[in-house]
Amino acid sequence: MHKITVLGAGYMGSAITFPLAKNGFEVNLWGTWLDDEIISACRKGEHPKLKVPLMPGIRLFHSQDLFPAVREADIIFIGVSSEGFLHVFKKLLDVLEKNTYIFTLTKGFAEENDKIERTSDAARQLLAQKFGSPEEPEFHWVSVGGPVKALELARNIPTVSVYGSADPAMLEIAKSFSTKNYRVIASEDQAGVELCAAFKNVYSMAMGMIDGLYGKKMPGNYHNFSSLIFNQGILEISRIVERAGGQKSTVFDNAGIGDLYTTSQSGRNRLFGELIGEGNPPDEVYHQLLDSGELAEGYHTLKAGMKWIKDLDGSLISRLPLLGIIHDIISGRQLPPAHLEKILEIYR
Amino acid sequence: MHKITVLGAGYMGSAITFPLAKNGFEVNLWGTWLDDEIISACRKGEHPKLKVPLMPGIRLFHSQDLFPAVREADIIFIGVSSEGFLHVFKKLLDVLEKNTYIFTLTKGFAEENDKIERTSDAARQLLAQKFGSPEEPEFHWVSVGGPVKALELARNIPTVSVYGSADPAMLEIAKSFSTKNYRVIASEDQAGVELCAAFKNVYSMAMGMIDGLYGKKMPGNYHNFSSLIFNQGILEISRIVERAGGQKSTVFDNAGIGDLYTTSQSGRNRLFGELIGEGNPPDEVYHQLLDSGELAEGYHTLKAGMKWIKDLDGSLISRLPLLGIIHDIISGRQLPPAHLEKILEIYR
Repeated sequence: MHKITVLGAGYMGSAITFPLAKNGFEVNLWGTWLDDEIISACRKGEHPKLKVPLMPGIRLFHSQDLFPAVREADIIFIGVSSEGFLHVFKKLLDVLEKNTYIFTLTKGFAEENDKIERTSDAARQLLAQKFGSPEEPEFHWVSVGGPVKALELARNIPTVSVYGSADPAMLEIAKSFSTKNYRVIASEDQAGVELCAAFKNVYSMAMGMIDGLYGKKMPGNYHNFSSLIFNQGILEISRIVERAGGQKSTVFDNAGIGDLYTTSQSGRNRLFGELIGEGNPPDEVYHQLLDSGELAEGYHTLKAGMKWIKDLDGSLISRLPLLGIIHDIISGRQLPPAHLEKILEIYR
Repeated sequence: MHKITVLGAGYMGSAITFPLAKNGFEVNLWGTWLDDEIISACRKGEHPKLKVPLMPGIRLFHSQDLFPAVREADIIFIGVSSEGFLHVFKKLLDVLEKNTYIFTLTKGFAEENDKIERTSDAARQLLAQKFGSPEEPEFHWVSVGGPVKALELARNIPTVSVYGSADPAMLEIAKSFSTKNYRVIASEDQAGVELCAAFKNVYSMAMGMIDGLYGKKMPGNYHNFSSLIFNQGILEISRIVERAGGQKSTVFDNAGIGDLYTTSQSGRNRLFGELIGEGNPPDEVYHQLLDSGELAEGYHTLKAGMKWIKDLDGSLISRLPLLGIIHDIISGRQLPPAHLEKILEIYR
């Protein structure tokens, strides 16, 4: 039986412990220095974000106890934000004694010294430095994608989750995480799954903006516009994924269509967009949300993702008009709604 | 300048008059025998369903005045329900003096004497009988697809609409219907557009069922499940379209993804599903809605569509598990939620 340690006790890291524990795995949950209060609260009762108690038997670790938390694990889930990813991953490598199977729930890009990489690429290099030659590193990596909202996973709402990896053995393990109401879908398209998970947070901000623009003045009657933005988001993600070597078919399925749907209906990135759509300045809204303990990760993924795309293929930007519009609005250069409505210009 | 007559003064027939009139076309709106009160109300003020007045200059015709309504038209929009389609289309052919360009907003199948056909196929045969040889009929036909909710089109919400036709000249005309906030997208895939428009009403019933099942007990926290159903709906529509000779790429774009999105957020088919999800018997709900003047067209499209698919290719049914589940529930043989959750079984 695998011993699993989850790093990060926020929404998603904590939620994944439910299906893992239901399958009988020994599960450790380690909180970062930002999660110490969460770990303490979980020991007493409910998880303060998920608003339910964790499953019995989950062993909880404060940030100072990383080594004991991971010492016996042969599987590690990384559930920290993209901003915290490199920091936590390096700390992990400091204490890790062998090359362990890694499943990452982190969505976004790893950023250091203005260098932006996919988290999997950054991790691959760091793992190779520690455990193998860069030419032939052992890389046991799974990118875990949606469509999964953590609150719902913790409440046993029927859920599927796409696990992407080039390693068939890891995909076999992944399937053992399925429960009656949580079904793991194995995909060989790691790039596609990773990029869908990252960019859906960007495009869902635009869905929220429309809610903010129209939700109060025309409640329930602005979905012609939402649907256009939703569809355009899917098309643009498919272009990004294809250019990065992934499969379009990954996007036109649960990891893309499904995940953007979930993220468009609720969650922090949609809310962030809604507040901007209502006329609030993006930077101000971002920090207000952060002060209340909620990170709108799409904000960072947008900025990092734009740079990453330009490095990948500058000519791709012209085929991502909605991404450019979102960037203009989030960076404060343009105001919705007029700017958002410019997307109509692609249909002349 | 084209002279356009719209047949059917319900939601969609009436809403399409807005962009047509804005473009300066002469527009006649003819109401069926079910629409006589609507026509009378429009003469006095607001359209009773759209809750806004029609554009100035729209000429209104009661059901008895079909011939004067269409006499001078060189373009006819058909905006009646699929149930009324054949009846109205035959009446039209009785008075039509020449082979006219036809744009159809009707979504679903034409059904007569237990024979079920795509509306375009039924119309092609009837037109050939009247105006040409069956071998080489002139067939000037456009299927108008979504994502368009009529109420929003009438309120100038940014909207795109996919027009599908094998006739490039008609697609050129279609583009002239665009306005600033209503953009026509031309597609050569008439079959794909027609079938997306029909089946989205079926799959949106399932989206409504989930709203009914979870909306009250877990408001906002059941979108993992909705997203799975949404994605499965898109995949199944793509299989239907491909088997019928259309293009998958039509489905993975505004006509499919976009239209199912709009229809899943609001509208009569979603509402019909929601009431079923709340535990009400399907037939009863259908008739209650009908008594209040609202037709849940997906109810008929489901039954007709299942028969049509079986005639097309019986083996396709096994690749449409969600369609089968919806059919079992709507026909009263199975109850949600347990039956709807069976969709998870496709991910073993």
